[in-house]
Amino acid sequence: MPFSPIRKLVPFANEAEKRGIKIYHLNIGQPDVPSPEKALEAVRNIKRKTLEYSPSEGFEDLRQKLARYYAGKGIDVTPDQIILTDGASEAVLLTFLTIINPGDEIIVEEPTYANYLGFAVSAGARIRPVTAKIENGFALPPTEEIEDAITEKTKAILICNPSNPTGYVYTEEELEKIRRIAYKYQLWLISDEAYREYNFTGKPSKSVLQLPSIEKNAILLDSFSKRYSECGIRVGMVVTRNEEIRYNLMKYCQARLSPPLLGQIAAAASIEGTEDYSAAVYEEYKARRDFFIDALNRIPGVYSPKPEGAFYTVASLPVDDAEGFCKWCLTDFSYDNSTVMMAPAAGFYATPGLGKNQVRLAYVLEIPELRKALDVLSRALAAYNSR
Amino acid sequence: MPFSPIRKLVPFANEAEKRGIKIYHLNIGQPDVPSPEKALEAVRNIKRKTLEYSPSEGFEDLRQKLARYYAGKGIDVTPDQIILTDGASEAVLLTFLTIINPGDEIIVEEPTYANYLGFAVSAGARIRPVTAKIENGFALPPTEEIEDAITEKTKAILICNPSNPTGYVYTEEELEKIRRIAYKYQLWLISDEAYREYNFTGKPSKSVLQLPSIEKNAILLDSFSKRYSECGIRVGMVVTRNEEIRYNLMKYCQARLSPPLLGQIAAAASIEGTEDYSAAVYEEYKARRDFFIDALNRIPGVYSPKPEGAFYTVASLPVDDAEGFCKWCLTDFSYDNSTVMMAPAAGFYATPGLGKNQVRLAYVLEIPELRKALDVLSRALAAYNSR
Repeated sequence: MPFSPIRKLVPFANEAEKRGIKIYHLNIGQPDVPSPEKALEAVRNIKRKTLEYSPSEGFEDLRQKLARYYAGKGIDVTPDQIILTDGASEAVLLTFLTIINPGDEIIVEEPTYANYLGFAVSAGARIRPVTAKIENGFALPPTEEIEDAITEKTKAILICNPSNPTGYVYTEEELEKIRRIAYKYQLWLISDEAYREYNFTGKPSKSVLQLPSIEKNAILLDSFSKRYSECGIRVGMVVTRNEEIRYNLMKYCQARLSPPLLGQIAAAASIEGTEDYSAAVYEEYKARRDFFIDALNRIPGVYSPKPEGAFYTVASLPVDDAEGFCKWCLTDFSYDNSTVMMAPAAGFYATPGLGKNQVRLAYVLEIPELRKALDVLSRALAAYNSR
Repeated sequence: MPFSPIRKLVPFANEAEKRGIKIYHLNIGQPDVPSPEKALEAVRNIKRKTLEYSPSEGFEDLRQKLARYYAGKGIDVTPDQIILTDGASEAVLLTFLTIINPGDEIIVEEPTYANYLGFAVSAGARIRPVTAKIENGFALPPTEEIEDAITEKTKAILICNPSNPTGYVYTEEELEKIRRIAYKYQLWLISDEAYREYNFTGKPSKSVLQLPSIEKNAILLDSFSKRYSECGIRVGMVVTRNEEIRYNLMKYCQARLSPPLLGQIAAAASIEGTEDYSAAVYEEYKARRDFFIDALNRIPGVYSPKPEGAFYTVASLPVDDAEGFCKWCLTDFSYDNSTVMMAPAAGFYATPGLGKNQVRLAYVLEIPELRKALDVLSRALAAYNSR
């Protein structure tokens, strides 16, 4: 189990903060936007006297609201097809534990959300990566490359759409290619769609649960964390129409007893009557994306595709070893008593050696802060390369 | 992965409730006592605007309070030696993922907390059970039996003290025997002490972290759930002085990002200034234990040892198949429009065939309710055996 690239440099950041240095956090998708006021109110108005277990699959009223939310997105599921988890992280881990036997293989497009890799390996899986390239804007690799990676041990394809870490949004054609492969080889198609609401293509996001003929193969992972800026409530979910998966997943869910009670209270208050909130947050991220990617590409030697979703990008830097540079920014550099924290991208690749000169950047700060962060980054690169 | 015996009959209970039948829940340790008012107040007074991630190891101020709590129990640990988790359930799962390689063996005294078994097997472990017998009041089996179960693949001994499901509390002599084995074979000694506060022996509970010469071997699992009647906040912890374990465990903790934010706020408000609360809850459970075990043993054919801790007992019933009987109580029986739900004990044993005529009972209802529950149980047994 490797350290997550998102948090592995935290000890160095803590040291820098102790020295009084301000850190611009581009490393983690911890939005600075407030949670919906309705969610905070629901927590403040809690009436119950005992903070007891909830059902292992989560509260029914919350699952009913979620079914209505999905219906509004054109995704037809019943409350029984939704199982609530301790964040999408637990959804990922328990899904792997449910479907993987030791030695099974999973096809993963890389770069991918790093924490998947560790959980999959912990569940006994072997990762078979297929590489998306920065020079192609991280578009889906050719179908042949994906099929070449399939063996008789392959059990699942894992995608993240919109993508963490690249921000890439699959086209309809790409989703159709993925669907055909899942159907042809009868694989689980696991899709993390936590960033559904942040899709800047102008077309609605399409879910794996909307793809024809693979109703039984599709497993949707989702989360409240990013949608409502509620990363701390730890409420995510697995959504599937496959009853056997649900049955087996419930064994794990019952073993861990229940998802967080207080988080579910905040979540239940977040879904309805928050349309204005969601629209404002969408516009804010879109404006940040436009500003951030443009400014990033103006730094000499830096290149980032323009991502169409989520609030991340993977950019290449004019350094040989991005991890060494990221660490150096925390240990050896400051400008105007501040520095920048980034996630080295190599940890988002399963293939050793890839992404060495890349970083994942999250644009979850206000634009004036992003401007300062990129100014610091620009100066850090210049200083690093003229050491 | 088997279904947890604690919740596997839930679908039948739901059906019974739909038919308007009142169910006395003796199956799950879901206390009916209120959470500390201070905890509820802290949640109601939440000031923050964004429900953001907390540190992966949990908030430092909460870990500092916990270190003071442990010091008050004679357990000397620093805040850095405490890692907060999503309930003790996650503490169990992540500890197993951290220390187990596929094929490793774990010595477990059975009956044991059922959910351990599934998590350990998921992590790749083989369970080597050592059986505690009801006729000995579930005392520690002889040292030779434990040593006989040890092979070169054995990595850990797992205990629960006070025990869920039996309520048994180890004597000082028994703990010394366990300590010697862990030291002699250099095994991890994992101890779940979530019921520390409910020890009716009159002597203070002793933790594995207080045992000499095995500082590096001892891993304490703990939880707020039972101590403060806060099962729903999902805050547990791993406490160890072993830096290597902490280092590797943190990889998993970072991968799953953070423990629940709102739960930690409730937890932090529960620890100090709640001494009166804790004393009252202790007295309540002690009175329930005294009433419950006495009344249980008056039912013809039923036998339960008198447990010295926690709020459970494992009792034998005058039936061949306790699981069939437990299910029948939910599907085919009612008295005065009510019935009783119990956890079949076979699922708490790793050895197939053991515990078939036993149930785990939780006495987490008020005494008048417990009286009615046992009246219903008594009538159910009579009806079942004269079908």
